[in-house]
Amino acid sequence: MKKLNIGIVGAGRIGKVHAASITYHIPGAQIVRVTDVYEPAAKALAEAYGVPAYGTDYMDIVNDPTIDAVLVCSPTPTHADISIAAMKAGKHVFCEKPVDLTIEKIKLTAQVAAETGRKLQIGFNRRFDHNHGKVQKLAADGTLGNIELIKITSRDPEPPSPEYAASSGGLYIDMMIHDFDMAMFLAGCDVKEVYAMGTSLVDPRIGEAGDVDTAIVTLTFENGALGVIDNSRRTAYGYDQRVEVFGSLGMAAGENDGDSTVRVSTAAGVVSDKPQHFFLERYMASFVEEMKQFIAAINEDKDVPVGIHAGLMSVVLAKAAKKSLDEHRPVKITEILEA
Amino acid sequence: MKKLNIGIVGAGRIGKVHAASITYHIPGAQIVRVTDVYEPAAKALAEAYGVPAYGTDYMDIVNDPTIDAVLVCSPTPTHADISIAAMKAGKHVFCEKPVDLTIEKIKLTAQVAAETGRKLQIGFNRRFDHNHGKVQKLAADGTLGNIELIKITSRDPEPPSPEYAASSGGLYIDMMIHDFDMAMFLAGCDVKEVYAMGTSLVDPRIGEAGDVDTAIVTLTFENGALGVIDNSRRTAYGYDQRVEVFGSLGMAAGENDGDSTVRVSTAAGVVSDKPQHFFLERYMASFVEEMKQFIAAINEDKDVPVGIHAGLMSVVLAKAAKKSLDEHRPVKITEILEA
Amino acid sequence: MKKLNIGIVGAGRIGKVHAASITYHIPGAQIVRVTDVYEPAAKALAEAYGVPAYGTDYMDIVNDPTIDAVLVCSPTPTHADISIAAMKAGKHVFCEKPVDLTIEKIKLTAQVAAETGRKLQIGFNRRFDHNHGKVQKLAADGTLGNIELIKITSRDPEPPSPEYAASSGGLYIDMMIHDFDMAMFLAGCDVKEVYAMGTSLVDPRIGEAGDVDTAIVTLTFENGALGVIDNSRRTAYGYDQRVEVFGSLGMAAGENDGDSTVRVSTAAGVVSDKPQHFFLERYMASFVEEMKQFIAAINEDKDVPVGIHAGLMSVVLAKAAKKSLDEHRPVKITEILEA
Amino acid sequence: MKKLNIGIVGAGRIGKVHAASITYHIPGAQIVRVTDVYEPAAKALAEAYGVPAYGTDYMDIVNDPTIDAVLVCSPTPTHADISIAAMKAGKHVFCEKPVDLTIEKIKLTAQVAAETGRKLQIGFNRRFDHNHGKVQKLAADGTLGNIELIKITSRDPEPPSPEYAASSGGLYIDMMIHDFDMAMFLAGCDVKEVYAMGTSLVDPRIGEAGDVDTAIVTLTFENGALGVIDNSRRTAYGYDQRVEVFGSLGMAAGENDGDSTVRVSTAAGVVSDKPQHFFLERYMASFVEEMKQFIAAINEDKDVPVGIHAGLMSVVLAKAAKKSLDEHRPVKITEILEA
Repeated sequence: MKKLNIGIVGAGRIGKVHAASITYHIPGAQIVRVTDVYEPAAKALAEAYGVPAYGTDYMDIVNDPTIDAVLVCSPTPTHADISIAAMKAGKHVFCEKPVDLTIEKIKLTAQVAAETGRKLQIGFNRRFDHNHGKVQKLAADGTLGNIELIKITSRDPEPPSPEYAASSGGLYIDMMIHDFDMAMFLAGCDVKEVYAMGTSLVDPRIGEAGDVDTAIVTLTFENGALGVIDNSRRTAYGYDQRVEVFGSLGMAAGENDGDSTVRVSTAAGVVSDKPQHFFLERYMASFVEEMKQFIAAINEDKDVPVGIHAGLMSVVLAKAAKKSLDEHRPVKITEILEA
Repeated sequence: MKKLNIGIVGAGRIGKVHAASITYHIPGAQIVRVTDVYEPAAKALAEAYGVPAYGTDYMDIVNDPTIDAVLVCSPTPTHADISIAAMKAGKHVFCEKPVDLTIEKIKLTAQVAAETGRKLQIGFNRRFDHNHGKVQKLAADGTLGNIELIKITSRDPEPPSPEYAASSGGLYIDMMIHDFDMAMFLAGCDVKEVYAMGTSLVDPRIGEAGDVDTAIVTLTFENGALGVIDNSRRTAYGYDQRVEVFGSLGMAAGENDGDSTVRVSTAAGVVSDKPQHFFLERYMASFVEEMKQFIAAINEDKDVPVGIHAGLMSVVLAKAAKKSLDEHRPVKITEILEA
Repeated sequence: MKKLNIGIVGAGRIGKVHAASITYHIPGAQIVRVTDVYEPAAKALAEAYGVPAYGTDYMDIVNDPTIDAVLVCSPTPTHADISIAAMKAGKHVFCEKPVDLTIEKIKLTAQVAAETGRKLQIGFNRRFDHNHGKVQKLAADGTLGNIELIKITSRDPEPPSPEYAASSGGLYIDMMIHDFDMAMFLAGCDVKEVYAMGTSLVDPRIGEAGDVDTAIVTLTFENGALGVIDNSRRTAYGYDQRVEVFGSLGMAAGENDGDSTVRVSTAAGVVSDKPQHFFLERYMASFVEEMKQFIAAINEDKDVPVGIHAGLMSVVLAKAAKKSLDEHRPVKITEILEA
Repeated sequence: MKKLNIGIVGAGRIGKVHAASITYHIPGAQIVRVTDVYEPAAKALAEAYGVPAYGTDYMDIVNDPTIDAVLVCSPTPTHADISIAAMKAGKHVFCEKPVDLTIEKIKLTAQVAAETGRKLQIGFNRRFDHNHGKVQKLAADGTLGNIELIKITSRDPEPPSPEYAASSGGLYIDMMIHDFDMAMFLAGCDVKEVYAMGTSLVDPRIGEAGDVDTAIVTLTFENGALGVIDNSRRTAYGYDQRVEVFGSLGMAAGENDGDSTVRVSTAAGVVSDKPQHFFLERYMASFVEEMKQFIAAINEDKDVPVGIHAGLMSVVLAKAAKKSLDEHRPVKITEILEA
C-alpha cells in the first residue's frame, strides 16, 4: 500500500507528539516535510524522526505536490490561514485547537473545507481517551437512558506563568475549550446557554492579568440536559480529568488514571497512585488514536471523527463564557453565534 | 446520673428515628411523652418505645414541668411556633429542618433562643455522617489548604408524587436545603451569591406542578471559593450522596456507601454494590450521632453543633435559588436576607 | 410477646458484647442473670445492662427455672461442661468457640444436644458478616458456578503477649479456628486434608514459647476444591479480613471495611482509610446478627445457623494443622477425627 | 549512534512481540535477520517489520558477523543449544523461558555465559510490569519492612487444549514458572522448599492427560518468609494477575488492569471493567521494557536485569513442585538442585 505523505507545520511540543504517532504507530503514513518559523526546531524534529526535508516556510508544504495531508501545529493565530491554504492546494488538514480566536475565521475555514471537499479534522484528542470515550459510548448507545446531567472536572497540575495566562486568551479558551468540546461530545448535541463563574485563587497575578484560574461554568444543552464544568489551573496531586454522565437509566463515571493499581497499606493509611502528572502522560494514547483515525478517514474516504463544527462551537462556548463572566449573567449561544 | 426527660412532638417517620436513637443509643436520656395530632401515631410510637404518656396536644409537652428538652418533628409550618413555645417554657429544643418557610419566623425563633438562653439545635443530620464529616474535618483542619472548590452531588432514588412536589415548597427548599447546609458546613463560611438552573426531566408532571426535578446550583462563598450542587429526584442505582472539597493542598472526596465491599467478577464485568437505597439506610448513624450531641450539649452546657444560623441560612439559600431560577440571573444572598 | 429469659455465664469482653446485643437490638429477649467467677465483673455487667441478678456460680443459671437460654462466654475449658449442664436442665445454649480443646468433649456435647433436643449454637460470628456472608451467598446460590479455589486472609493488628500465645493453645486453634470455619462455610462442605506452614517472624518470643505468629495453611475440601488461609499476628495497618471464592463462573471477593469511603488526594498520593482496627469494630454487626438468629431459632423452633458440627470440625482442622506443622507433612482429617 | 544489530530465532507469537518492540520502541537497535524452521513464518515477520534477511537455519544468525545480539524465541527444547552457539560466536543472547527442561542444560548454558562473558537475559517479562514492579520496589526499598508473606494469583482466561497440556511439561513448568520467578523477584531471595497441590477441575481431560489445571503451591523462602501461589487455567472474567507482599511495616498489593477506569451504575449494580483479556494485552508494556533493558545492558555494558540464575531457579521450583505433587510431601529445593 502506498503510504500517505504528511507535512507538519510547527515543530513544537504537539508537532512532535504527532510526529511520534505517525512514525511509530501508523504504518500507512510517513512524514516527508516539516516546517517551523524557528529553523532549529524544524531541524530537530526532522532528525529525530527521519524526516527528509525541513524548513521555515509552511508554503513549502502547501506547494509540495507529493504531500497528501498537513498537520497544522503552529501557533493559534496562524491555524486558519494555513489550513485554508493547504485545503485550497488540495491537501487534507488536521488542525490543532482552537481553530481561531474569531468566529469569522472559523466559519471561513469551514466554508473552504466545504468548497474543496478536503478532510478537515480538529485536534480534540480527549474524545479518543479510553475513559471519556467509554462514557460517551454508554451515553450514545442508550445504556444510560435519557441524558440529564453531565459533569466534567478538569484541573491542571501546575499554573501557567501570569504572562502566559495574559496572552493565552484566558482560561475559557485556553483550557476549558477541551471541556466544552467534551461536554457536547458526551451530550451528543450542542449547548444553548452558559453561565460562567471565575476567580483567581491560585495565583493573584493571574487575576491581575485579567484572567481567572479557578472556574465553574454551567451549561444548558439543546436536548434539555444540564451540565457543569469545573477547572483549576493547579492541583497538589496531579492532572485531574474526570467525566460523569447521568441519565434516566444510570450513570457512567471515569476515575483518573494512575501509573499502577498498587495500593500500599501502612500505618499511614492505604495509599494509591496519584493521577498521572499531565497531558503528555495522561492522553498520549488518545493523540495516537486521533491521528490513526485521521489517516483512516483519508484512506477510506470517511468522515473525520471531529469536524469543523466542533472547532466552531468550542470557541463559541468559550466566548459566551467570557461574556457571561464579564456581564455576570447567563448568555445564550446565539448571542455569540449570530453576533 | 439523672436521665434527661425528652418530649417528642410529631410521631411520624423522623420522630420514630429519634425515638429509636434515644431508646437504644443514649443511656443519658429517656422519652417521657409523645404527641401527634393523629393520636394513633402517638400511641404507636409510645408503645413501640415504652413511652409512658402520649396525646394529641403538643402543649401537654410544653407544660410538662418534668420535661427537659423537646424534639420538634411535626410538619414544617408548626416548627417555629412549637419551638418558641417550648423555649419560653424553659425547654431545650431540637428542631427539624426547615425551621420555617419564612425568614421572619426563623429570625423570631432565633431571637427567642437568644432571650431564653435555651439550646436550639437544627436537624441537619448529614453533618454527622462518617464520610461528609471526615471531608469537613480535613477542610477545617488545614489538610486541604485554602478551600477553592466545593462539589456536592445529591440524588434521590425515587421521585415524589407530583402532588407532594407541588406542596413541598419545591426542590430547593425540600431537597437541596440539606446540600445548602452541607456546602456552608464544608466551606466553613456563608454563601454570598447563588445561580440556579432547574428543569423537569424525571417526571413532566413535576414540571407542570411548577417544580423542578433536576437542578444545578452554583455558589460563591464569602471566603471566595466557588461551589456547585447537583440534584436529581431519581436515580436508577440508589441514593447518590457524594461531596468533594478541593483546596490548594489537595482534595478530599467521599464515595457512596454500599451494603458490602464485595466485588463479583464474572463474564459480565466486575460488579460492586449499589449505593445504599435511601436516607434511612444511608444516614441512620448520623441521626443517632446528632441526637447524642444534642443531649451532650445540654448535659455539658456546650454550644449545640448546628445552631439557628444554619437553620436561617439554608432557607435563605433555597429562596435565593428559587428567585434565581424565576428571574434567570444570579441572586445575592443579601437580596433575600435583607428583604 | 413474652420475652425470652437469658442467662450469661462469663462477664468478660464477649459476654458484654452479647449483653449489649440483647439489650439494644433484640426486643424479644432480656437478660435475667449473669455469673462470673470474678464477682465484680458479674456485678459490673449487671449494672451496665440492668440485669436484675448476678453471682459467681453458673449453676445458679442452670438451676433457674425462669431462664430459657444460656450464653456460655466463660473460659474455653469450661465451655463444654457448662453447655452440657445447661442443656440437661432444659435450656438452649449459645456457646462461644472453641467448644473445647478435646475432640471427645465436643462429641459428648453434641451427643447431649441430640439427646435433649435443645438448640446449641456455636459463636462463629464471622459467618454473619456483611462481606463474608455475601460471598458465601454467591457461592451457595450458584452465581460462581462450581467452586474451585477459596482464599482467606486474616491478620490481627497486634500480636498477643508471648505468655498469652503460650497458653492459648497456639495460633491454629486460637486464631485460625475462625478461618477454618469460614473456609468450610464458604465451600459448603468439610475439609479432608490440610498442610500447615508456620513460623515466628513477628515476635521471636512467640517462637520460643512454641507457637507461630505467621502461618499459611492449605486445604483440600471434600468437594475437590482447594483452599488457602494466611494468618499473621500483626499488621502495620489494622485488622485485615478478606475472603475470596473462585469458581467456574466467576469470583467474589470482599475488601476490608474502613471507617469512611473518603479518599484524600495530596502531593503524597491518594489516601484511603485503613481497615477498621480490630474485631470489636469490624465485626460488631455480626455479633448482633448471630444473637438475633439464635433468639429467632428458639422462638420459631428452627435449626440454629451454626451447629455443633461446625464446632467440632473447626477444632479438628486446628489439630490437624498443628500435627501437619509438627510432622512436616499433609495430614488427613480422618487422622484426627478417628483417632 | 550505531544501531545494535539483532537476529531473531523463531518467528512465532513471542518473536513478533519482540520484533515490534525493537522496531517501534527502541531506536538504538534494528533487526537484521530472522529465522524460523517454518519459512513462511520467517518471511512474514521479515516483511511486517522490514527485516532485510530471513531463512530457516538459525546458524545463519550465529554465523552472521554483523549481528550483535540474538533473541531466542524458538521452541523450548532448542533454547539452550541456540543460546550456547550464539554466545560461543560472540553474541549477546536474550533467551525465552524456560531455558530448558533439564537442570543440566541450564547449568551448561550458565557456564558458557560465564566463560564467554556474553550478556544472557532470560525472558521473565512480568518483572517489568508497572504493578508487579512497583510492589517489588516497595519490598526492596524497605517500605514494607521485613518481608513475611508473599501471595501471587495467576489465572489464565482460557484453558489450553488437553493435547497442549499433555505436551507442555505440565502446569508447573508451563504456567506457574512465571509465578515462581515472580515470587523470588518479590522476596529478593531464593526459595528453599515447596509444597504443591494440584487438581483438574477445569477440564477433566487435562487430568486424564496427567496434568493439573487448578493448583496451589506454598513456598518457604531462604529469608524465612512464607509464600503461596494459586493458578487456574480458566477464569470467567479475564486474565487475573495479582501480587501481594506483606511485611512488618505494611503491605503492597496490585489489582488487575482494566481497559478503562469507568464505573457504570445502573439498577444492576456498579460495574467496572473486567481484567484485560490475556497476556498480550496485559503485559505488552513489560515486553517492550524488558527488551529496552536488554539493549541498554549491552550498550552500557551493565548486568542484565534477569540473569541465568533466575532461569535456573524457576525450573528447579517447577520440578520441585511436580515432585511434591507426585510424592504428596514438601520437597526441598536441594533435592532437585543437587540431584
